Formats: sequence, C-alpha cells, structure tokens
Amino acid sequence: NWAGAHPRVAARMAEASSGYAAAYGSSDLDKKVELRFAEIFEREVAVFFVATGTAANSLAMTSASRPGAVAFCHRDAHMVADECGAPEYLSGGTVRMLPVDGPIGRMDLGALRQSVARFNPGSVHGGRPTAVSITQATEVGTVYHLDEIAEIGDLCREKSLTLHMDGARFANALTSLDASPAEMTWKRGVDIVSFGGTKNGCWCAEAVILFDLDRAKDFGFARKRAAQLFSKSRFIAAQFDAYFEDGLWLDSARHANAMSTRLARAFGASNRARLAWEPEANEVFAIMARIDHARLSEAGARFYEWQPPLGFGGELGPDDRLYRFVTSFATTTEDVDRFADLLG
Amino acid sequence: NWAGAHPRVAARMAEASSGYAAAYGSSDLDKKVELRFAEIFEREVAVFFVATGTAANSLAMTSASRPGAVAFCHRDAHMVADECGAPEYLSGGTVRMLPVDGPIGRMDLGALRQSVARFNPGSVHGGRPTAVSITQATEVGTVYHLDEIAEIGDLCREKSLTLHMDGARFANALTSLDASPAEMTWKRGVDIVSFGGTKNGCWCAEAVILFDLDRAKDFGFARKRAAQLFSKSRFIAAQFDAYFEDGLWLDSARHANAMSTRLARAFGASNRARLAWEPEANEVFAIMARIDHARLSEAGARFYEWQPPLGFGGELGPDDRLYRFVTSFATTTEDVDRFADLLG
Amino acid sequence: NWAGAHPRVAARMAEASSGYAAAYGSSDLDKKVELRFAEIFEREVAVFFVATGTAANSLAMTSASRPGAVAFCHRDAHMVADECGAPEYLSGGTVRMLPVDGPIGRMDLGALRQSVARFNPGSVHGGRPTAVSITQATEVGTVYHLDEIAEIGDLCREKSLTLHMDGARFANALTSLDASPAEMTWKRGVDIVSFGGTKNGCWCAEAVILFDLDRAKDFGFARKRAAQLFSKSRFIAAQFDAYFEDGLWLDSARHANAMSTRLARAFGASNRARLAWEPEANEVFAIMARIDHARLSEAGARFYEWQPPLGFGGELGPDDRLYRFVTSFATTTEDVDRFADLLG
Amino acid sequence: NWAGAHPRVAARMAEASSGYAAAYGSSDLDKKVELRFAEIFEREVAVFFVATGTAANSLAMTSASRPGAVAFCHRDAHMVADECGAPEYLSGGTVRMLPVDGPIGRMDLGALRQSVARFNPGSVHGGRPTAVSITQATEVGTVYHLDEIAEIGDLCREKSLTLHMDGARFANALTSLDASPAEMTWKRGVDIVSFGGTKNGCWCAEAVILFDLDRAKDFGFARKRAAQLFSKSRFIAAQFDAYFEDGLWLDSARHANAMSTRLARAFGASNRARLAWEPEANEVFAIMARIDHARLSEAGARFYEWQPPLGFGGELGPDDRLYRFVTSFATTTEDVDRFADLLG
Repeated sequence: NWAGAHPRVAARMAEASSGYAAAYGSSDLDKKVELRFAEIFEREVAVFFVATGTAANSLAMTSASRPGAVAFCHRDAHMVADECGAPEYLSGGTVRMLPVDGPIGRMDLGALRQSVARFNPGSVHGGRPTAVSITQATEVGTVYHLDEIAEIGDLCREKSLTLHMDGARFANALTSLDASPAEMTWKRGVDIVSFGGTKNGCWCAEAVILFDLDRAKDFGFARKRAAQLFSKSRFIAAQFDAYFEDGLWLDSARHANAMSTRLARAFGASNRARLAWEPEANEVFAIMARIDHARLSEAGARFYEWQPPLGFGGELGPDDRLYRFVTSFATTTEDVDRFADLLG
Repeated sequence: NWAGAHPRVAARMAEASSGYAAAYGSSDLDKKVELRFAEIFEREVAVFFVATGTAANSLAMTSASRPGAVAFCHRDAHMVADECGAPEYLSGGTVRMLPVDGPIGRMDLGALRQSVARFNPGSVHGGRPTAVSITQATEVGTVYHLDEIAEIGDLCREKSLTLHMDGARFANALTSLDASPAEMTWKRGVDIVSFGGTKNGCWCAEAVILFDLDRAKDFGFARKRAAQLFSKSRFIAAQFDAYFEDGLWLDSARHANAMSTRLARAFGASNRARLAWEPEANEVFAIMARIDHARLSEAGARFYEWQPPLGFGGELGPDDRLYRFVTSFATTTEDVDRFADLLG
Repeated sequence: NWAGAHPRVAARMAEASSGYAAAYGSSDLDKKVELRFAEIFEREVAVFFVATGTAANSLAMTSASRPGAVAFCHRDAHMVADECGAPEYLSGGTVRMLPVDGPIGRMDLGALRQSVARFNPGSVHGGRPTAVSITQATEVGTVYHLDEIAEIGDLCREKSLTLHMDGARFANALTSLDASPAEMTWKRGVDIVSFGGTKNGCWCAEAVILFDLDRAKDFGFARKRAAQLFSKSRFIAAQFDAYFEDGLWLDSARHANAMSTRLARAFGASNRARLAWEPEANEVFAIMARIDHARLSEAGARFYEWQPPLGFGGELGPDDRLYRFVTSFATTTEDVDRFADLLG
Repeated sequence: NWAGAHPRVAARMAEASSGYAAAYGSSDLDKKVELRFAEIFEREVAVFFVATGTAANSLAMTSASRPGAVAFCHRDAHMVADECGAPEYLSGGTVRMLPVDGPIGRMDLGALRQSVARFNPGSVHGGRPTAVSITQATEVGTVYHLDEIAEIGDLCREKSLTLHMDGARFANALTSLDASPAEMTWKRGVDIVSFGGTKNGCWCAEAVILFDLDRAKDFGFARKRAAQLFSKSRFIAAQFDAYFEDGLWLDSARHANAMSTRLARAFGASNRARLAWEPEANEVFAIMARIDHARLSEAGARFYEWQPPLGFGGELGPDDRLYRFVTSFATTTEDVDRFADLLG
C-alpha cells in the first residue's frame, strides 16, 4: 500500500479522463471490464466495484447473512483483526465473525469443523453458521492449497454455508499456486470473491465477484445503501482494464512473489537474521534482533515489527523480534540485493 | 457525473502514481491537502476523505446522532431521495431522516421550525431532533442565500442541533453567492460539510469537514468501520491538490454556472421551451413538450425528464414535461449554442 | 394502558405461577395457545410472543425487509410517530418507513399507490418497496373496512409487497366490523399480524402471527437476537389462554367499543363539546374549549389533548382543542354517564 | 427458568391488576420500586425495566459503546454464547464482544489485561476497547470475589472502560459472598448492572441499573427504540416490589444456594458421580456416566449434559459426561434428598 500505481494503470486512467460516459457503472468501459471478469473466471459472474477491500469483505458477509448469522475465519484474518468491526457494522449487526485457529495464517480444517459443529441448528440461542471466509494469500504470506480449499468447500456444501475468499492478494496466490482463477475459486466451492487490485498495482480497484447470480439483485441495493457505488465508476473500470491487459496483473504478482523468494534466500544466507517460515506469496517474515532492525532502518530500509501469529513455532530469543517485508510490482532486484548486502 | 476528470486533476494523479508514500492518509500529500482545507476555511478543521458523497452525508449524520435521532432535510434532498437509505443504514439504524417541505429545493424555515417543534424533548416516544442538513447547491439548481443559512444556523443553536451542509456542489454554490467558504459555512452556523469535488472535475474526491475537532476522534473509527478509509489515500489527496491549485475548483464552478446561465438565456429566447425557474448554480430546469425532447435527443442532445418538485408553480400542459440539464467544467459555449440552435 | 389486567387474566397468571414448565416457549401451555391461534385464524400459523407492540411491529418489518427496503404506512401510524425509530433501528437500519397521507387515520389508496409507484424497481438509488403496514383499528379510532383491506392486499400482491397489520387494537376492530379474524386478515391479503392483547385486558401479551410459515425459521432467530424471547414464556401464554377462553377477548372489545359509542352519544347531546368524527372502535375524539378541559379535569376526568390529524375537516375555533378518550374493558357505563353529566 | 413465580410475587401482581395507573413507567408503584433500588444500592441510581436479561445486557453494551467499540467478557458468558448475537445486533452493529479465557467461568485477569493491551489506541484498524462485562454469578456456578471485581474495576478505570455486571444471578452471588449490593458493584468499580429477578422467583423482572446518571437520558431513548419500554410497566414494578419486600429476594437466593450445597454434598458422598468443581451459587456441575444419567432421568430427575468449559481440569472417562443442576427458590430439601437416594 506504500507503492503508488503501476505506470500502465496510471496511463489508462489518464486516457479515460476525457470524454463523457454513463455514470454509476453503466459505461461501455464498465461493461467491457465485467465481460473480462467473466472470461477470467470462465463463467458468467456478477461484478460489483467497491471502494475498499474492507467494503468488499463486509458486503460479501452481508450477502451471506441471515438473522443470527455467524461467520468463520482465521483468527488473524483482516476481517477480525484489522477492519474495526466493519463486517459486523456494515451488516447492520447481523453477522458475527468467529475466529478459528490454525498455524501460520490458515484455518485448521479440524478446528473449523469443530467450531461449526458447536452450533445446534435447532437452537436460537447460539446463532447459526452462515459463512466461512478464507484469506488468499493469507495475512502472513502463506496460501491455501487447492485441496485445502476443496475440503473447506465440501464442508460448506455439507453445512449450507457460503464460502467467501478474501482475495486482497488474489493474484499473488494464483501465481504462487500456478492455478487458474476458476480452479482456485468456484471449482473448489468458493461462492464469493473479494477481488483486490489495489495491492498489486492499482490505485483503488476492488470488486466483489458473485458466482451465484441470484445474489446480484440484493447486492446492488446493499452496495448503494452502504455508500459504495461510485458515480464515475469507470475510473475503477479503467484501472482493471489496464490491470488485465496483456496479463499485467499476473506479471506484477509473479514479480512480487519472485522478489519475496529472492529476499527469503537472502535471509537463508544471513548470519544475523533467519526466515520465520517459507513465503508462498509476496510477504516475507523474518526474525532478527531489534538492534539489527535499528541498524537497517538507519540505512534506509523500511520494515516493521509484526506480532507473532498463534502457533508460530520459531523460538524467539529475548532480543529477537518478528519482522514483515512486503514486496510488490515496484520492488526491484536491486532493492532486494542492496538489502541483502546491508543485512549481512 | 458523465464528464471524466479535469486534465489538470488527471495529470496530478499520474504524477502521484510513482514513488512510495505512507498509507491510510498519513502521506505528505495527504497532510498538505489537509492544511489547504484549513486555509480555505480560515480555521483549523478535521478532514476525512471518503469514497462517495453518500458516504460523506451518512457519516456526517452518524456523527450527529444519539439514540432516537431524527434529522431534518428537504423532501427532495439526495439523502432521502437518492441514497437508498444509506443515512439510516450507515448510522446503524440510529438516524431517521425527516423530510421538510419548501419550494424549489430549499426547506421553508417555518416548516422546518414546525417540524422540529413537533418533538417533545421530554418524551421518548417520538424520538429527538439531532441535526439539520441543507443541500448547497440544492438538487434543483437553487442555493440557500447567506441569510437563510444564518437563520437555520440560529435555529440549530437554539435547539442544540448539528447543522450539516451537503456540499456535493459546494463550489457552484460558493461562486454563485460570491462568498468565501467560511462565510457560507461556520460563520453561519454550519458544523459539518460534505465537501464534494467529484461533480466539479475530480474522479472521486469527497471529504467530510468537521469544524468541531472534538468529533474527529470518533469519526476516524466511524469511517474505518464503514469501510471508507482508503489505503492509498493519496490518490484522493492528489486530486484535491490539483483541484485547489490556482483556483481550479472555483474557475471550474464559475464556468459551469456561466454555462447554465447561457443555457437559461437560450430557453428564455425559445418558442418551444421555457425555463422552469431561474438557475442559481450549474443546473437548468426547463419545460418542453415530449416531442421536442425526442427531436433533440435524436439530434444528439442528452438530457432527462425530472419529476416536478413539490410547490413547483409552473403549469405543465398535458404534453409538457420538466427536463434537467447539468453543466460542468467540460461544457463549452459551443455545446450550449449548438443546443440553442437545435432547440429553436 | 392505564387499566391493569382483567381479573380473569390475572387469575390465570396466578394459577400458572406454580409448578415447573419448559422454558423459552416450549411448555405445554405455550403449545396450547399456539393451537388456539390456529383455530382462531382457521389455518396453520406461526406464533411468536414478544414483549411490546413496538417489538411486534419492528420484527414484522424486519421479516419483510431486503436491502434498500421501504415500507409504507399512514403518517400517524404508531410505527412512524411513536416508536422512536424502532422499526428502523431493530431492522439493523434496513427498513425506512415512508408515511402516506389519508384522512382520519387511514391511508388513501390512491396516495399509497402513488407512493409505491414513485420507486423505479430498476434503480438502486431510491430504494425499493417491500411492505405496507395498516393499523387496525387506527390511531384515531377508525377502522379499515374489509373491502379497503382487500384493495390494499391486491396492490401488495401486484407489487410483491408484504402486507402487515398492526393489530394493537385487533379485537376492537374485529368486533367493530363483525368479521372473523380470517376475514379481516389473510383472506384479504394480510401476511403478518401484530396481535395485541395488552390494550384489551392483558398485562403484557403481544404476538406476531405469520401466515407464511416459511418466514418462521428466520423469525425465531430474529426474535432472539432482538432480545424478545422470554425465558418464562408461559406467563404470556397464560394471559392469552385466559384472553381467548369463553370469548373474553371479544367480549372485552365489544364492551370497550360500546362504551365509546355511548360516550360519542354524550358528545352528540352536549352543548359544550362536539364529536370530531364518528368512532368505530374504542377511541373517541371530541372538540371542546380548553376551559372545559380544565373544568372536567378538575372534576376528576382524565383525558388529553391530541394533535389534529392531517385532513381533519372539523373547524377548530381559536380556543378549541381536540381531545382523545380511550375506553376499555374496565370502563363502566357509570363512568361514561358521570362524565356526560359533568360535560353538560 | 423452569420454575414459575414465587407465590408472593404472583400475589402482588394479582393485587396490582386492578385500578388505573400511569403508563410507561411513571406510576406510583414504578417510582416506589425505583426508590427501593436506590436504598438497596445506597446511592442514587437510574433504573430501567426491560423484558429480558439479553435486553439488559445488550442495552448496557450499547450505552458503553462508541464507533469501533470492543467489549470483553468470558468465553462462556451468556452474551457471547447464548444470545444469538444480540449485543452486536442491538447496538446497531457497534459493539463486538471479544471472548477472554479463564478457568471455570471467570476471566483470568492477566488474559483480560493482555486482550485489552492488544489494541493500539492510536490505530483505527483494530477497533478500541470500551467495556468489560463480568457475569455474577457465572454461567458455571462460580462467583467473582470482591477483590477480583476490584482488580477488574481498577483495570477499567486505568483504561477508561465501562465495567458491566451481568447480574442474571445477582442475588445468588450476593448471598454467596455475604456482601452488600454496593460492595459488590460500584464500590468495586462497576458502572452498570443487569439486575435479574426472573431466575430468582419473578415471572419477568429485569432491570438495568446505571450508577452514572449522565447515561440515563440517552438510555431512555435507547430502550424505547429497542422496543423494551413496557406500557403497563407496573407489572414489572409489582414483581420487584414483592421481590424486595421483607428480603424475599435474599431469602430465595440463600435457599437456592443452600440447596446447591446440599446437592454438592450428595455428589461428594456418591460412588457413581463426582462433583466437577465446588459450587459457589445455585448451580452444581457433576460428572457421571451417561448410563447413570439415563437411569436417573427414567426415575424422573431432569438435568442436562453440559459442554465442559475451557480449562476444566477434571478428567472425563470415555463414558463420562458433565451435567448441570440448577436449584431455585422452589427446590426443596426433599427434592435434593430424593435425588441423592436415587443417585446412590
């Protein structure tokens, strides 16, 4: 989120700025991009642009809610940890997010199954499960593998739960798995995707993708009353247009992932720091002494301490801390190598 | 909303796209723009960027609410007529918008006073007044004059109500009145402004301005949980930066208003249509036969029928309809004159 | 609401107080009463006890809501005038109540039709109609006649709207019309009833009746999360049990209505006051000078001034006011006659 | 909740049923009971009757909320485990309940402190702590001791958090601690109490007690819009009137607690079952084989399996289960002794 926009995205926005176009998502460019999403997902989809990933997640949860709704996600998921209660608030108090444990960012299937089973469908006291949300890639740079998604998808079918994917880092997970968008989503049981472009080279390009078109009518009203319908919607469309053109989105993600791999290798070679766990997308977590953090910061590197996730097995010495590094389309090999040199 | 962005706004966004900057509103550019707002309003202000005018209005209403809250606005105000219940929804069901009558877009002060007086502050049954919202310029192209704002401001002080201004067309009203931002707002009793740049040359640039800084702390959390905090916030800041530079915002508004005046003159001169009421900002409302609408549409003019506002005195013949024309920074004198020729 | 409970209701509660019974609505007495409701309505129904009429109305509106929901009721209806925004609040901000005009407490069918028609189902901006609520008997002592209910029912079918009846004074309307519960409700298109016993001799006995059993599952959760599920639910059941036994509810309502008729006659015979409109249930509205109100109050009569409803044709002199009288099971002919004597 | 009402409570309701009285909480009886609460708590208090304990808890949480609010309570607390999301829903989505661990029903102070500390007050992403709720007596029959309450109270003062006590079993805890209401609440830092009479001999008598009278004005509106304002409020007042008279409430609680102690002794003496932990109020938890549960149920004893709380140290054999027994004013020594004989 510290990088700006990719030059090709910025250029497309500039082009789109002249001329008139229909408002509120009905311009030709909006429609072109909607069709592009259908191609990408290999089926008809309903596409709703929104302002933020938090909005996408919250509206997805609202769409999956009924009175007494309980939705399950990982304890560290953005929805419970970093959205100030937006899923609860934007659903009119209808949804409660229930955190589920699991090592290194992914829900443990057994723990999820147990959490769901605790609710007696015949009793109104506890509430009732309505949805599961998985974060792909996770907050800590890991990804759910295709068979893991399929298992969660099966549980959701069995229990009539909506399966949502928070795809703030969708492209990074996709290229990491070398899968198609269809394979990573509806072919494994995913019903709704928060599709994020912002972290991968756009200014502000977030969309909710519904595979079940029956949800779309309510969704349009739900988006509007949540103040998430842009009048000049094509400024989002323009970003996605450039994002998808000639595979820019996949190239950017592959590059960011490669930079993470390169950085991970640097930690592997270092005497002063070590990798906390293997990165699978565009985030690297490493352990080092606070004194080294200070030293590197002074030299111009910018990275932050991170609260160790539950179940993190790495033993932290008394002076050690966990640090997080995020790579993006804008990270260069020179950046990484210079950092590796500084690291020592 | 059919126009794109002003070239200078588009250019500034392109410039801002390269390089790194702090996220979530803490970049240097964000801070520069906040200071600019303080200069413009001639006092310290709290500035919160949001995604849409609807969000600005709804969060303003939320900020002014308490249990049982009732807020007053004109019957045709965007908040009650065109926001799908967002003020009610985004306030967690706390606020009810109560429509007040008044001719040609402005609340009648007597009607407002009477509406407020109907609530007995000692009784919990009816609810309690907490806010008044005025739309400046109004939905139908008129503006509240400074003394009218002052009178409403006095009522609000007397009754301990928050006074909100929906400034989706703030610049158009300002230049129409030839007033300063301070004179049109806090010097007349306005507490909160929804400050809109989108309709006047930006892509997406809306802000809530709080004159009472005590409200700011809660507001930051309220914005976040409403999913209205942009990560790459500086893309809004960049637009406002260009918008304010060298008076672009005022020049654009003056131009749009002048185009409306020119268009109004064309209607005055026409045999086939007539002005519904005098425009005071950048919207013109005219009466013509449906057959003329069809004829002009065929010739390429794009304008739409509008539901006559309450208290509209113009007598509509059986085949007559009311039509709305919106001018903007992008409207040219040639556009207007060509239309005038077509109109006949 | 100033009267206590009918002696037979009080006695049944005292009887029910001993012994153990299942909680949360599953006791034998709860089940007996549910069956009794089915008999009364001549069909299977779902019955949900709640604490207040406001709760019944709000949960009914919630049950009929979808994103962007707009519900229509008379301008003076309890839901908009006297419930402090509960329908909006308890629906999580989902429902907006839109007031419709009509003389003497009843919506005008044409005005209702027009209000509904203003919403374009293809547009998300305005919101969308989801329900109509009629108050039976109305706030001002009139009743919707069976053919009026049927016409509103037809409109609801045509527009796919849920028809709700606020039956806080259900029995008074029923006996006034000499109709069966089925005839006054589902046979005329009513989908949900707020069935009130409190104003007609119970302490606290309110129920939501659903004719569409599909709504029941969600409703159970909606009631619980709205904190309206009583643990010792049978204390409500006991009241209804006595209320329905040997026609107590109908006898009480007939008596209250007869007392209103008797009181109306007293006003007809008076020189110092006159009837505002013909009562059709258990409320009488009369016009008299404030000085007479003072005189009667001093003599011990307790009645209050009432804000004249919209479209009230009676001409009020400068010193005249409108006053409201409510009769109940506990009103005696002696009470009425004594008042008539005092009135003069 | 399976017992009915205490005969003295039932009798007082029957007495109150005749005669007229002001509605909505302004009757003489309502006022008498409010004064009685002030005496009991040895200070001025604001008293709000509501329909259910869930309502009391939810409105208390709402009263303590601000945008982004997070409230802390034990993982097994009624508010998170058994209220179908009511605190979240009835606060308009404003409050999130965050569960805190601790053995046998009580939050561990260290865990609570850590949970609170996780929120960075300067960051809007996570939300912000606003309240702590303790359940007294807890869901599993234990009580917070006075010094434990004081420690939590100190933490709340330090962090500017509202301290709420869910007193659904207030009297049982009070008599167990042999403390005064003042000592167990505001003298230890408690700000709001959900004061429950229903489980201790009333039909339906729940009240919210505010020690900070400044909260009262908003609270009245909040209660009304939550549909929790009874019209014939004195039927609640009548119950509390009898409840407090001659110490009925304390006698009932002492009796229920004594019956639990007696039952605990029976388990101590049994070869076929054992106590799970020492009861401190009116609930006993015991471990026995399912076959014994079946045997006792057949003989007419009614008690249910209970999910073992987190941190429960008792080792359950493969055929063992945890069972819960609740005693009340209506439990007799004969009941307990007969059960003990059956138990063997």
